Amino acid sequence: MVILAGTKHPGNIGSVARAMHNMGLKQLRLSAPQCMPNDESERLACGGKAVLENASIHRSLKGALRGIHFLVGTTGKTGGNRSQTCSPRTLAPKIVAQAEKQRVGILFGPEDTGLVDVDLLACQMLVRIPTDPRAHSINLAQAVMIVCYELLLASLVREPARVPKLAPVEQVEAMYAHLEQALLQIGFLSDQNARHMMFALRRLLGRAGLETADVGILRGIARQIAWYSGVKREGED
Amino acid sequence: MVILAGTKHPGNIGSVARAMHNMGLKQLRLSAPQCMPNDESERLACGGKAVLENASIHRSLKGALRGIHFLVGTTGKTGGNRSQTCSPRTLAPKIVAQAEKQRVGILFGPEDTGLVDVDLLACQMLVRIPTDPRAHSINLAQAVMIVCYELLLASLVREPARVPKLAPVEQVEAMYAHLEQALLQIGFLSDQNARHMMFALRRLLGRAGLETADVGILRGIARQIAWYSGVKREGED
Repeated sequence: MVILAGTKHPGNIGSVARAMHNMGLKQLRLSAPQCMPNDESERLACGGKAVLENASIHRSLKGALRGIHFLVGTTGKTGGNRSQTCSPRTLAPKIVAQAEKQRVGILFGPEDTGLVDVDLLACQMLVRIPTDPRAHSINLAQAVMIVCYELLLASLVREPARVPKLAPVEQVEAMYAHLEQALLQIGFLSDQNARHMMFALRRLLGRAGLETADVGILRGIARQIAWYSGVKREGED
Repeated sequence: MVILAGTKHPGNIGSVARAMHNMGLKQLRLSAPQCMPNDESERLACGGKAVLENASIHRSLKGALRGIHFLVGTTGKTGGNRSQTCSPRTLAPKIVAQAEKQRVGILFGPEDTGLVDVDLLACQMLVRIPTDPRAHSINLAQAVMIVCYELLLASLVREPARVPKLAPVEQVEAMYAHLEQALLQIGFLSDQNARHMMFALRRLLGRAGLETADVGILRGIARQIAWYSGVKREGED
């Protein structure tokens, strides 16, 4: 499923619906859109009107991500927190294999800024469309088209792959919150480095593809650290 | 070079220029356009304004094809004269190889009809973008984008894959030993479950592909847990 975050131009929403329709994708979610679908969207959607009509609208990204197991973020930028990106061609077979078993979301940011750091947090993988190095800013609907095109092609030549049953996003997020809290308590994280370190941990664990059992182990560690830290505090009192 | 025949919407001409710019193509010819580039074209061209400004306009297809050695036609339809089509992925390496020696043109028809039989005559090859079989009508600029994207990828020859620089085994093993010790100290691991849990943790972190920086973070956590636990023990003494 395609998730558009903070889209600004109704025309792009329509063009995205048409591109999805061309490539056989049906489910569209709009997360906190900065415009609502209108006549222009409908006109540009052409054959993809049903995709547009069935699109769900969510007030927050959290709501738009509900029930998603595997979330892929798209970015045109490089460097910093975006150093570990895959090309759509490399990633498409993995996405197709995942989508057979569970719900996959591909997240696209607003036209002007793209996804910002806080949006990237929930993404297990990042995808970047190769471009001429001097011209990386691709129109939103064009970017959606390229990703959907790669998904269609990958679905036509499926290789049997082991598909891990990933934990749903809300479970993973709750674990990260728990872990962060525990690491703050024992002073591994400070107000200064928490954001940066948690981001690094998310990249690391995101690459692994967390399954429910993994989340259980990590929560177990977080719980034990927190408990220990609590015992110590009581001892101090 | 991209040749647009009989284009009807100025917006599409602008979007084509942007897509070409993204993928590093510069030369655009307009053959008997049914509209002229206007403000909307410029707006949608974004970074591709130079492509738009340098586009040449020709009154006939014959004029637009002058100097072209290898002409590829695009079609969304199948059957009849269009039975021998290639996919963009198959054709792109051939086009790139040709373009190193001589002038290659890729011809796109009008938005509503696409190329008609008489246009196809001059084409040495036909390319058809794979779509959902029930939705083959792709927006003109989207079609140009997919073809240009395939050309860019083919021109990169080998996609520069990011090869993670993994941490050496001895570093990873030392980290696991450290982590195991720390988790034993806080009672997350016991003699009974240590083997099993460490195996699960190794599977989880192994999937991520640990780099030196990752190992550093994990050791940092282990160190902090161990330190905390030491502090507590001292307190108990």
